[in-house]
Amino acid sequence: MTDQTPLVIFTPSGKRGHFPVGTPILTAARQLGVDLDSVCGGRGICSKCQIAPAYGDFPKHGVTVRDGALSDWNEVEARYDRVRGLKKGRRLGCQAKVEGDIVVDVPPESQVHKQVVRKAASTKPIVMDPATKLVMIDVVEPDMHSPSGDLERVADALQAQWDIGPVTARLPVLKALQPALRKGKWQVSVAVHTPAGSDTSQILGVWPGFHEGGLYGLAVDLGSTTIAAHLCDLSDGRVLASSGLMNPQIRFGEDLMSRVSYVMMNPGGDAEMTAAVQEALNTLAVDIATEAGIDPALIFETVIVCNPVMHHLLLGIDPVELGQAPFALATSGSLTLDARDIGLSDIAPTAQLYLLPCIAGHVGADAAAVALAEEPNTSQDLALIVDVGTNAEILLGDTNGVLACSSPTGPAFEGAQISAGQRAAPGAIERIEIDPVTKEPRFRVIGVDAWSDDADFPADTQITGICGSGIIEAVAEMRMAGLLDASGLIGSAEATGTARCEPTGRTHAYLIHDATATGGPRVTVTQGDIRAIQLAKSALYAGARLLMDQRGVTKVDRVVLAGAFGAHISPKHAMVLGMIPDVPLDKVQSAGNAAGHGARIALCNRAARTSIEAIVRDIHKVETAVEPRFQEHFVNANAIPHATDPFPELAQVVTLPNVAFGASGSAPGDGGGRRRRRRG
Amino acid sequence: MTDQTPLVIFTPSGKRGHFPVGTPILTAARQLGVDLDSVCGGRGICSKCQIAPAYGDFPKHGVTVRDGALSDWNEVEARYDRVRGLKKGRRLGCQAKVEGDIVVDVPPESQVHKQVVRKAASTKPIVMDPATKLVMIDVVEPDMHSPSGDLERVADALQAQWDIGPVTARLPVLKALQPALRKGKWQVSVAVHTPAGSDTSQILGVWPGFHEGGLYGLAVDLGSTTIAAHLCDLSDGRVLASSGLMNPQIRFGEDLMSRVSYVMMNPGGDAEMTAAVQEALNTLAVDIATEAGIDPALIFETVIVCNPVMHHLLLGIDPVELGQAPFALATSGSLTLDARDIGLSDIAPTAQLYLLPCIAGHVGADAAAVALAEEPNTSQDLALIVDVGTNAEILLGDTNGVLACSSPTGPAFEGAQISAGQRAAPGAIERIEIDPVTKEPRFRVIGVDAWSDDADFPADTQITGICGSGIIEAVAEMRMAGLLDASGLIGSAEATGTARCEPTGRTHAYLIHDATATGGPRVTVTQGDIRAIQLAKSALYAGARLLMDQRGVTKVDRVVLAGAFGAHISPKHAMVLGMIPDVPLDKVQSAGNAAGHGARIALCNRAARTSIEAIVRDIHKVETAVEPRFQEHFVNANAIPHATDPFPELAQVVTLPNVAFGASGSAPGDGGGRRRRRRG
Repeated sequence: MTDQTPLVIFTPSGKRGHFPVGTPILTAARQLGVDLDSVCGGRGICSKCQIAPAYGDFPKHGVTVRDGALSDWNEVEARYDRVRGLKKGRRLGCQAKVEGDIVVDVPPESQVHKQVVRKAASTKPIVMDPATKLVMIDVVEPDMHSPSGDLERVADALQAQWDIGPVTARLPVLKALQPALRKGKWQVSVAVHTPAGSDTSQILGVWPGFHEGGLYGLAVDLGSTTIAAHLCDLSDGRVLASSGLMNPQIRFGEDLMSRVSYVMMNPGGDAEMTAAVQEALNTLAVDIATEAGIDPALIFETVIVCNPVMHHLLLGIDPVELGQAPFALATSGSLTLDARDIGLSDIAPTAQLYLLPCIAGHVGADAAAVALAEEPNTSQDLALIVDVGTNAEILLGDTNGVLACSSPTGPAFEGAQISAGQRAAPGAIERIEIDPVTKEPRFRVIGVDAWSDDADFPADTQITGICGSGIIEAVAEMRMAGLLDASGLIGSAEATGTARCEPTGRTHAYLIHDATATGGPRVTVTQGDIRAIQLAKSALYAGARLLMDQRGVTKVDRVVLAGAFGAHISPKHAMVLGMIPDVPLDKVQSAGNAAGHGARIALCNRAARTSIEAIVRDIHKVETAVEPRFQEHFVNANAIPHATDPFPELAQVVTLPNVAFGASGSAPGDGGGRRRRRRG
Repeated sequence: MTDQTPLVIFTPSGKRGHFPVGTPILTAARQLGVDLDSVCGGRGICSKCQIAPAYGDFPKHGVTVRDGALSDWNEVEARYDRVRGLKKGRRLGCQAKVEGDIVVDVPPESQVHKQVVRKAASTKPIVMDPATKLVMIDVVEPDMHSPSGDLERVADALQAQWDIGPVTARLPVLKALQPALRKGKWQVSVAVHTPAGSDTSQILGVWPGFHEGGLYGLAVDLGSTTIAAHLCDLSDGRVLASSGLMNPQIRFGEDLMSRVSYVMMNPGGDAEMTAAVQEALNTLAVDIATEAGIDPALIFETVIVCNPVMHHLLLGIDPVELGQAPFALATSGSLTLDARDIGLSDIAPTAQLYLLPCIAGHVGADAAAVALAEEPNTSQDLALIVDVGTNAEILLGDTNGVLACSSPTGPAFEGAQISAGQRAAPGAIERIEIDPVTKEPRFRVIGVDAWSDDADFPADTQITGICGSGIIEAVAEMRMAGLLDASGLIGSAEATGTARCEPTGRTHAYLIHDATATGGPRVTVTQGDIRAIQLAKSALYAGARLLMDQRGVTKVDRVVLAGAFGAHISPKHAMVLGMIPDVPLDKVQSAGNAAGHGARIALCNRAARTSIEAIVRDIHKVETAVEPRFQEHFVNANAIPHATDPFPELAQVVTLPNVAFGASGSAPGDGGGRRRRRRG
């Protein structure tokens, strides 16, 4: 190649080289190692290799690009534009050929390793590199004089045309192979799965010619209470649909330990729960595909994250060992299985399942997924990441190391075991403020934009209860308004000066809203509700403190609240309650469903699987169940915000009234010192 | 180690070394790399490490072994002897410890890579090295402070105690793992499968403590007509039971091409045939295990060999491409699958299936198995190996290279399409001689030792027909006795001088035996029978000749007759018939069921799998269907023994009468020149 041949410069990579006139841009890109996508291998079918040529003077690059620097539109491009429409200024990289010096921009969507921008701006984008990819190949026709199987010639084509190493195929693919090759006239598209860290691939699907239908993956966060799934396009990582349903195992027990007990009491109970959750997952897969308008048989990958008990029950492993010390997992490593092994019978028959590794007997693949999404191991400052749910997963760490534990918060944060509690759904009070002078509440209801005291708050709003974030705000507001003392005791009407503090037996309850006139409930916060929240928040705080002890610190730099519910918690209220350690309020971030995001990362990026497996090995696990200090932290955390730890950052924002409603002003006898239930 | 420590010499290996007093013999053997077996890892349970110490003067080795050179019997040995009995002079290698210079003989059955002696003395023994092995391990108990899964600690134990690399486990094993570990008090036996050429193993089974039940494998020769299976002990290769059944696909078509036609005519017909053969295999597996008195769930490996059409129908692949040029296989490589994938649902749920590679579209895994058993590639002289069945697999080769083809002989050699033909079973005439002077026959019947003209031949013998080897001898004897001319025409009673040559329409038949008096058939050889045999033998000979053409030779050094039927063919009669090329009679060997033997080798020896995959790649495939010379060879081979090829070796043994019964003495119009059916 001499300097006489045209210069091709790619942006944004800046890669450049000289190529003979007539070289397709895709070819030039491949030779230079430019990240330009193609599925059809340069046949002008897939349109993945779209590029944007730039004309004019480019002093920075030292070239002038003249009209005619690329070949004219050819028939393939014209047809593509006619049928599907090509964005203005775009060319197909496989069709446009070099005629003169040219600057070629590769738009983000044309990169193989394109980045998927996530909602939370604080987190890094996902780089696309899924384990399952679609490629189109030309296969050599059979020759009886040099006989070889069709599969072997497909393997040769994958090697020669896509540099994909040894491949295997299971029976569903072997059955489909010969008709597809002949129908496609020896051109087929194949879905190729390469497990992380492997150099052997498996063909999961085959289609005649170019497969228009795409490949899809399912990222599932299998929680004790809810199952949430994202359906992703494996070519670009887009979430096409998200869906969720209740975990049907709830009928066997609300929390994990009651499910383990169910197995102990009912031989075969594990098989019942396994069948229930497998069936639910299969239904969810079909429903989400239907919602997105795709064929469920095009789902070729599934990534599931869940806690250890869910993990074992999903796989059909008796979880009884997880219910007693030393809490031994049957397997802690990541698993790559056939999805059909866990009853996913309505997606692709060859679909693969990847389960993230578990961190310990009480710290599951969901915590690993949070670690993958939030990357505490790369944090410069010391981050405390709390995935709030029926069970809280807690991670503490920075580049010097990461610690993890789980803590049994119980279902109170999700609105369960609360007198007027309900799941976050229309009609639920989700935010609340209490006037410190009048002690009157105002609130917002899910599904209504206005606050309850706004003029445009609809008079006919159905108010059905209070959800998890609502109860946290209510308790914190009650504390701030002087209706609740540090021990968690609600004051009487006399002591607080508001008739909303109603006597209920020997204790009091605060009335937020009386909806009985419209057939609704009386929404109150009872003394029992306060106790339930105290138990939950004490468990959470004690878990965090235990990790801080292990790390030898008394404060953290920032707090990340994760979990579907964590995203809705007000940092200030969480801190008034003493759920989380004291940090500046602007250092409390919300990460949304970090476990689900972690699942999606593992779905879209093969290397992330290797990475999390290594990270998990390095995480220091702390077992809350047997740490004597956990109990001590738990008792001290029972006060609101805390009996002994100062909250100086909180004090800068909020001054808590110094009230006391008990005989002695100390915590009453029904306080949270005794925890019988181990986990939620 | 100084020369002061005792010297331990192992025989027959001759390996020697000095070891401190108190070293167990098993430990010494392992350190020296002596091939001494052990499953329990030295716990005195499995008795696989039995050794025979030798005492006295050994000038050859330069040592004198004194009494007391080994430690006294300990309790473990005493208990073992009490419960199971230890052969006189034997010790347990893991219990007997070095006390002085000692010579230790390792008997053949105590070697890991023990040799399995096969019946045919001409063939090499199988060296035991199965893909699935049983080992016993001590597993570290779980520790919640350094949590890891039970599987991960099992993997650590396999690595440390048996040098077995990374392992995986599927759900059935994960489910069984925790109970087994606890029941076995952290001592378990595991069945570990390591595919040929892989460094990753899979745990297929787990048992508490020492697993007494053994591991078993099934070697299956899946033929068009019959399915034959050997159940082997994977520890020593012993055949515990052999069983066979008819291929139920026969109801869809007698030969391969009629089955392919059935699929073409009946959409879904392939699925019917797949279900039929899979069900038959599962039944066979259970039956053979029952016969051997073992639990079918202890069958962990299955090796199947079969022709390409059977191969595809077994796997559920539509075989239609095999029915037309270019006879493309869906896959030609070897396959390792889960046995449950082909419906083997009653053996171990994790059982593995290995299918040998196919050589070409018409030359299957059965031919590959014959190549593995007979090793033409290592033959110093040029060997022609013929696996005679409904379809004949033919291999020609020596160390300079191997050629292969298949030839559609049809079912005549198996007694089908023969007027009095029947399968080889009691009552069938299997051997026959015809007196050249009197033209009277004498014969032997399956199930009776005496010849028919012996005094002690039971008068009440039920004679039901004539089997494959019987019809071959009959035709050859008729030719030698002058009842049949070279063109294949049977002479009349007048021309031959015997009333046994009866007119039947325009042709004649030779009466072997009239059993009508006892309610049996009239067993005759008709002109149609002769034609069927001529078609079959011409196809066989033409295939062999085609390979000889390709190799550029007109004679071979030796002929091996393989196949269940091949073992029963008399070499002289086969040569009179012109089934096989002319060689000295003592150069015609019988190899028994070589395909089945090949399957057994692949079952017992992992390296054989890698080896046959390489051999198959090097075999030169010849497609008889499209070779013009095949037709020419076929026509010339129609004469008995041959129209043009001289048979000088045969002539030294047999002088064939120069008779001619046709008008011109040449082949009549109904001769075998036209072959419509492609394959059998």
